[in-house]
Amino acid sequence: MQTIGHLINGAVITEGAASLPVYNPSTGETTTAVDIASPSTVEQAVLKAKAAYPAWRDTPPIRRARIMQKFVQLLEENADTICDLIGQEHGKIRHDAMGELQRGIENVEYACGIPNLLKGEHTRNVGPGIDAWSEFQPLGVVAGITPFNFPVMVPLWMYPIAIACGNCFVLKPSERDPSSTLFVAQLLQEAGLPAGVMNVVNGDKATVNALLDHPDISAVSFVGSTPVAESIYARASANGKRCQALGGAKNHAIVLPDADLDNAVSQLLGAAFGSSGERCMALSVVTVVGDQTADALIEKLQAKMVELRVGAYSDNNNDFGPVITAAHRNRVNTLITSAETQGAKVVVDGRNPDVEGHNEGFYVGATLIDAVQPTMESYQQEIFGPVLQVVRVASMSQAMQLINDHEYGNGTCIFTRDGEAARYFSDHIEVGMVGINVPLPVPVAYHSFGGWKRSFFGDLSAYGPDGVRFYTRRKTITQRWPSDAVRENVSFSMPVMK
Amino acid sequence: MQTIGHLINGAVITEGAASLPVYNPSTGETTTAVDIASPSTVEQAVLKAKAAYPAWRDTPPIRRARIMQKFVQLLEENADTICDLIGQEHGKIRHDAMGELQRGIENVEYACGIPNLLKGEHTRNVGPGIDAWSEFQPLGVVAGITPFNFPVMVPLWMYPIAIACGNCFVLKPSERDPSSTLFVAQLLQEAGLPAGVMNVVNGDKATVNALLDHPDISAVSFVGSTPVAESIYARASANGKRCQALGGAKNHAIVLPDADLDNAVSQLLGAAFGSSGERCMALSVVTVVGDQTADALIEKLQAKMVELRVGAYSDNNNDFGPVITAAHRNRVNTLITSAETQGAKVVVDGRNPDVEGHNEGFYVGATLIDAVQPTMESYQQEIFGPVLQVVRVASMSQAMQLINDHEYGNGTCIFTRDGEAARYFSDHIEVGMVGINVPLPVPVAYHSFGGWKRSFFGDLSAYGPDGVRFYTRRKTITQRWPSDAVRENVSFSMPVMK
Amino acid sequence: MQTIGHLINGAVITEGAASLPVYNPSTGETTTAVDIASPSTVEQAVLKAKAAYPAWRDTPPIRRARIMQKFVQLLEENADTICDLIGQEHGKIRHDAMGELQRGIENVEYACGIPNLLKGEHTRNVGPGIDAWSEFQPLGVVAGITPFNFPVMVPLWMYPIAIACGNCFVLKPSERDPSSTLFVAQLLQEAGLPAGVMNVVNGDKATVNALLDHPDISAVSFVGSTPVAESIYARASANGKRCQALGGAKNHAIVLPDADLDNAVSQLLGAAFGSSGERCMALSVVTVVGDQTADALIEKLQAKMVELRVGAYSDNNNDFGPVITAAHRNRVNTLITSAETQGAKVVVDGRNPDVEGHNEGFYVGATLIDAVQPTMESYQQEIFGPVLQVVRVASMSQAMQLINDHEYGNGTCIFTRDGEAARYFSDHIEVGMVGINVPLPVPVAYHSFGGWKRSFFGDLSAYGPDGVRFYTRRKTITQRWPSDAVRENVSFSMPVMK
Amino acid sequence: MQTIGHLINGAVITEGAASLPVYNPSTGETTTAVDIASPSTVEQAVLKAKAAYPAWRDTPPIRRARIMQKFVQLLEENADTICDLIGQEHGKIRHDAMGELQRGIENVEYACGIPNLLKGEHTRNVGPGIDAWSEFQPLGVVAGITPFNFPVMVPLWMYPIAIACGNCFVLKPSERDPSSTLFVAQLLQEAGLPAGVMNVVNGDKATVNALLDHPDISAVSFVGSTPVAESIYARASANGKRCQALGGAKNHAIVLPDADLDNAVSQLLGAAFGSSGERCMALSVVTVVGDQTADALIEKLQAKMVELRVGAYSDNNNDFGPVITAAHRNRVNTLITSAETQGAKVVVDGRNPDVEGHNEGFYVGATLIDAVQPTMESYQQEIFGPVLQVVRVASMSQAMQLINDHEYGNGTCIFTRDGEAARYFSDHIEVGMVGINVPLPVPVAYHSFGGWKRSFFGDLSAYGPDGVRFYTRRKTITQRWPSDAVRENVSFSMPVMK
Repeated sequence: MQTIGHLINGAVITEGAASLPVYNPSTGETTTAVDIASPSTVEQAVLKAKAAYPAWRDTPPIRRARIMQKFVQLLEENADTICDLIGQEHGKIRHDAMGELQRGIENVEYACGIPNLLKGEHTRNVGPGIDAWSEFQPLGVVAGITPFNFPVMVPLWMYPIAIACGNCFVLKPSERDPSSTLFVAQLLQEAGLPAGVMNVVNGDKATVNALLDHPDISAVSFVGSTPVAESIYARASANGKRCQALGGAKNHAIVLPDADLDNAVSQLLGAAFGSSGERCMALSVVTVVGDQTADALIEKLQAKMVELRVGAYSDNNNDFGPVITAAHRNRVNTLITSAETQGAKVVVDGRNPDVEGHNEGFYVGATLIDAVQPTMESYQQEIFGPVLQVVRVASMSQAMQLINDHEYGNGTCIFTRDGEAARYFSDHIEVGMVGINVPLPVPVAYHSFGGWKRSFFGDLSAYGPDGVRFYTRRKTITQRWPSDAVRENVSFSMPVMK
Repeated sequence: MQTIGHLINGAVITEGAASLPVYNPSTGETTTAVDIASPSTVEQAVLKAKAAYPAWRDTPPIRRARIMQKFVQLLEENADTICDLIGQEHGKIRHDAMGELQRGIENVEYACGIPNLLKGEHTRNVGPGIDAWSEFQPLGVVAGITPFNFPVMVPLWMYPIAIACGNCFVLKPSERDPSSTLFVAQLLQEAGLPAGVMNVVNGDKATVNALLDHPDISAVSFVGSTPVAESIYARASANGKRCQALGGAKNHAIVLPDADLDNAVSQLLGAAFGSSGERCMALSVVTVVGDQTADALIEKLQAKMVELRVGAYSDNNNDFGPVITAAHRNRVNTLITSAETQGAKVVVDGRNPDVEGHNEGFYVGATLIDAVQPTMESYQQEIFGPVLQVVRVASMSQAMQLINDHEYGNGTCIFTRDGEAARYFSDHIEVGMVGINVPLPVPVAYHSFGGWKRSFFGDLSAYGPDGVRFYTRRKTITQRWPSDAVRENVSFSMPVMK
Repeated sequence: MQTIGHLINGAVITEGAASLPVYNPSTGETTTAVDIASPSTVEQAVLKAKAAYPAWRDTPPIRRARIMQKFVQLLEENADTICDLIGQEHGKIRHDAMGELQRGIENVEYACGIPNLLKGEHTRNVGPGIDAWSEFQPLGVVAGITPFNFPVMVPLWMYPIAIACGNCFVLKPSERDPSSTLFVAQLLQEAGLPAGVMNVVNGDKATVNALLDHPDISAVSFVGSTPVAESIYARASANGKRCQALGGAKNHAIVLPDADLDNAVSQLLGAAFGSSGERCMALSVVTVVGDQTADALIEKLQAKMVELRVGAYSDNNNDFGPVITAAHRNRVNTLITSAETQGAKVVVDGRNPDVEGHNEGFYVGATLIDAVQPTMESYQQEIFGPVLQVVRVASMSQAMQLINDHEYGNGTCIFTRDGEAARYFSDHIEVGMVGINVPLPVPVAYHSFGGWKRSFFGDLSAYGPDGVRFYTRRKTITQRWPSDAVRENVSFSMPVMK
Repeated sequence: MQTIGHLINGAVITEGAASLPVYNPSTGETTTAVDIASPSTVEQAVLKAKAAYPAWRDTPPIRRARIMQKFVQLLEENADTICDLIGQEHGKIRHDAMGELQRGIENVEYACGIPNLLKGEHTRNVGPGIDAWSEFQPLGVVAGITPFNFPVMVPLWMYPIAIACGNCFVLKPSERDPSSTLFVAQLLQEAGLPAGVMNVVNGDKATVNALLDHPDISAVSFVGSTPVAESIYARASANGKRCQALGGAKNHAIVLPDADLDNAVSQLLGAAFGSSGERCMALSVVTVVGDQTADALIEKLQAKMVELRVGAYSDNNNDFGPVITAAHRNRVNTLITSAETQGAKVVVDGRNPDVEGHNEGFYVGATLIDAVQPTMESYQQEIFGPVLQVVRVASMSQAMQLINDHEYGNGTCIFTRDGEAARYFSDHIEVGMVGINVPLPVPVAYHSFGGWKRSFFGDLSAYGPDGVRFYTRRKTITQRWPSDAVRENVSFSMPVMK
């Protein structure tokens, strides 16, 4: 069993001193282990990145873009391998892993446009004979800390843009499913990136803190849970760094009585149970306006849910796979039970499903809970499992109030065909990413991703235009040439130097 | 003697419980006092701002812009009063106060363009039949904390844009010279701003902390010294807020042998001694390449410096006025003495100048020190007084190394006529605002202001395009209309509602 | 009776050789005359503009913007006079003239943002050590030719932006109502514009041709009817100039069965009859889906139309005034009669209304025609009068086909509450300006105005971002500094010049 | 010998009715023939493009971009074949053809960013509850007409962006060297483009006119000589189309006495003689300030020119190849002779060079002419051959006057190290593309290409941001939802449809 190592200065190394086990959640088996970087390994990663920086910042953007173009090709050519690695360690079914990879590739495609995206603003004559312009220069060495649920996509939100902007990068991936992340980083190396520009260090909280405290790291991007996001934002900022920290979510859909219910149902199924609900954009609560609508919706959901298949990543006919760990499975089950205990009605119960041949895997089946109240624990916490909760409300106002009162504000969606309702909702809802009949309103790669309230700490969102701005610092040059000596006295002046 | 109060919900109030004295630095006299806001007054300011927010965010940008247009007019009509208030409490000469006001007005002019500046990005067909667009919505209530040295301009960097973006504002100005700040805020009220949108609370560190810790404040802009900037950035961030904190500076000029020396001298005089050097963009160090150039430059500077007049704000023939307090004067004098003690040569000595009729004022004359070394205390600290230090170097590389090694990176300037030298300098110098033969490269209002390294904490600079982005949060809407029921079945469907 | 003259080089002059009568359409009386510029006067206008150009192009944008700010103030202070002049010669009621003026002012406000709008794009390192940037430089002398129906607003679409960009301008206004246009141009002069930058020449077709053929005119903006637009576009282009020519319109509304009918009715009234229908954005055709909806709509329209008041401009209680000339009144009446003859049903007949005390004025009352067919002359031509025609259709597809088949494509609107219908319509309709429940979708000043098909000739629309681009030409500078001689050999080189 | 055909609806066809011979200029032999499209073939091309349009415009931009990514790969993989085809018919040496191809590919790379580039502007609340946004929709079918000198690059300036924007395209390439153009278009087909989106018709002036007059062609891009550009601009415009027509050039360099002469010489050689001077950006005139500088420059040029090798395209050691036809060779020789006759001094004479083994090829050797006067025929005309003319001037002002007086204004360059001279030059020179020590200032693909004066007719430049704007038309949607019926009455309303 080979230990998963670190990518430092273009080469994969392992230390062998300390490691953490890595599981196959579909079977429950331990398949490999991931090396824990020692402080000196973290130091090496930063030092090599710092050493690679001067040459990389001076490489013209168009050349940096060409490496990203080659990276796109390699990602496409290696899609099978990547999806397999994701599946083995995360449990995601192939079709879902392909979706993740595709979304990740789109961020690299965006980074290919860096020559255009880095343009500064130029003004002739800010005053008489005085010009000024801005340049967006790279920061130096920047770090990314990424979660288990998208081991390929979320890192690709960060480093392609950061590196295309001229930075060097140190990535600390999740220790749960590090293989696909490392493999993808190696493909970038293969695409022609100079050694040291991209580095990966595996590890734990100490590794993260070493990055947060390192004086040569200029900026930190984080995606994970809200408590960790909050503490990372505080610590990076206390160290004077810029930081963007994306946290948890509790994404509500509203279903209005005029909605196309069949469409709403098919959208909700994917958005609630896809990837076992382990997405920060998963739709985990549906607020339905009017009991009549709620009854109809639940009936239709129930009918469709019997067809859903949970199972191992390796069978592409499954709809979704296991959750990430046994502990997490237990936590999800406990939250379902708590809802039941507190008075909600479990309409479809996914606890302890029978997954033939894989009963040691960490499975939870698709679960539907009706009559959920905002006071319940299952409502207040992010479950991060295949659980859809129905909250019945009497009006759209009431539904919006629930959403606006929640501490999170990542994504939300409304199902309606009414233009006015949709516009009122999108204007007044205090959530960063809004869907109109789109259940997972993850912005495309050329827009930017960011929640509001306690789902996000920082001012610039992830990837897209905000990503470019986050990974660059503005330099403004004001220029005036004071005398016309050379121009007007040319016939009298000798050439100055040989 | 009237106490200077707070602007809360459209009215000026004083509490009378606690206050701090306010001086006329030109005479040394205490002229008035400024009220210290109690916690309940700070609370009122935030509450009223919060209450005013929903209506203000829904006011179309063009209407918000029209109030800013009226504000520009009022600022121009009241220029004399404003400059007088600045002069009395800060000591700045009229011509300098007019410059400050003008730069401030330019930020309001920029804010008048808010309908155009707030545009989001719209994409048709992110997928088949799916559109997406971004909106830049206001944050809610935001706060500004501003320094004594530009009591009018620096607040105008912040609140016109913040308010034009749809936010409500609470400003904590410097307690040294609060009158002009308050007067200007009242003019905005007079321009038609609804009560509660703009609020001013005077106070001290406790007032600042109350704002930093208040859960209803979404963002904080700060301008001041680096240690305070750093702690404010850490505290605001630990509270989950977005923050931009502008700190201190040690701005170097480089003079190359090919520079137009007469031009360099005249530029340096203004940049080093204007406003008594109490500017974060003051040029306080000049690194000269080659002894021949240094000797020539010093000779020319010395000749011009005998003509400089320091004196009371009220005489417009003076070149610059007193520093802000007696304590600060003493600190400046001590730093000059330290340079002397540590081996530098005080070429022109401004300590204890004779200012006829105003010898109780807080004056320091223009001071020129040669042979300064990077190890000296006077080099390492920001003096914030009318002191220009010369560091002699053998090459441009050496000069650039000095600048890049300094902890600050606010502004810098090179004097040369050589295109290649200018471009190499502006590209590689690690400073946020660069002048080519422009000694005070403060970006114009439609660009943005921000230093690098420990001169700035945050990612978005002050005012201009970055200001708009800082005071708004991105919302991305993804929209799909699922069925063509109404469009295609019109002849069969009854009108739905009356 | 004073003849209306030309504004040349800052002064109003008249020649007295040839003139055309100017009417008060509300009374039918000839009130004054407008001077026809001789070829030498046109030549003078261009020459003076050309002479003023070099200094004006070098005036920093911020200073140009300040003149526009002052111009905004003067326009607001002189609103009464301006509206009176519009009313006297055009016949527009005060409230409508105020609307026109307000829309015009918004274009000047936009021009105030020119320092920001003129920014070019800057790229560091297009290649190693090579930078490139774009500048948007003015064209020189540009011309505008404007119609009678908006004597204040349409000229303000053109020259404030053109002049703010650094161009000099020659305006040829309509000879029907030249007074308000001239008065407004004089206000810009009063605002501080240097003489020669803005010029007005009155005249006829020969005057227009003189401008189109003049080698010193670089660009032409035109607004008027399609046949003229077409010939101006051809002639200006044959002379090598850039040209934007806005022509006629036949703007259709679609009313779907789910529309809020009361709202639709109140919107249609204003859009069809406001300004007597003499607007290129007037809604002159309403296509109603389904007979049931059509019957209900017509009933509601009819009920409201009895309350409409046509009459003299001087009574602000009137809803709309006369049309521009007796000949035009006759043409409108003839087209109404033709519809009747060809089988349509005149539901409300506005021919020959009784306007007490003003029966010599050029009045047509609000007219509603049902059962209009696409083959009728009244459908095919732009009537430019207070006539609303109803075309009954069986489906939205049929309505859209009608619109897409029409030669014009200026504005259109749909009344519905259905999001899907609105999006399908706006996406697929071949019209440049689309309203969703907005009957006159004239883009605000910070967007741009332009029709499609034979309503517009050119590529850049009027005003807004396209206006800035139209009135500037791109210059791209690519820069490389070949040697580091000065920078690296400084200690050996003597300062070059004194 | 196979006749070169047309690409219509995805397939290459030939008619065989009429054709023109195609030469190998390196040998003088006729190698093949190109089919002349009959009117019905042109009609087919337009009809097929029109038929392909609806589906292509509705294909999401990201999918259009992916075809462009694949196209980039195919261009790289087929580089050898492409360069060979260019060389055979144009005579360009391999290294030069590779440069041409590379520049062309960069335009396709830019087109890959179309999802980002097509973004419109969105405004929330242009009025209360009213939103507005712009979309940049495709035009329909557009045409390109391209010259012989860049059979691969110039077409790639046009159709990748046009097609990525959602248009369908008909290309009429030069009849001199059509093979590489056709081959490249077929690669785009191979990359997955639907049939009919891209079409190529070969032919002559009648073919061009058929396109200019076709009512289904919305826009025309042309690159060629000024007289043709001018007539195409007039004819396309008279037909109501938008048009951009790029014409001829006479690009001057200025050499100041402070220039790095060795650098200037090496830059001038490539810029004057590369591609035999058959480039619209070729530097054909060098104005030298001061006789001392001129003498030194000429001496250095002469020394280097002896090393230049003219010869067949197939030998990569040659510096440049033949000109395009025997007739053109004769014209170049005649112009050289005319300069000699009119008093200039032919310093290096390239007439009738001995090219071993290929003496039937159309060769002119590198030619240097001194003492050229602006009155000479060789100065006034665009030679389009390997001829560099020296004009001696006394001052930079005089040099700039010469440039500004010339009818063309495509490119220009200054050699200096002085920042002030460079800035004064780039600001005041009336030329669209300016180099500072960059002899061929062709803007990179993410900026735009366009001359001034009679080098360009139109308002939007070629490729880059202007290209995107040229190939799209603005649609502005203003949206208001009039009632809150659905939102607020939800509990009373039945779901409308199943």
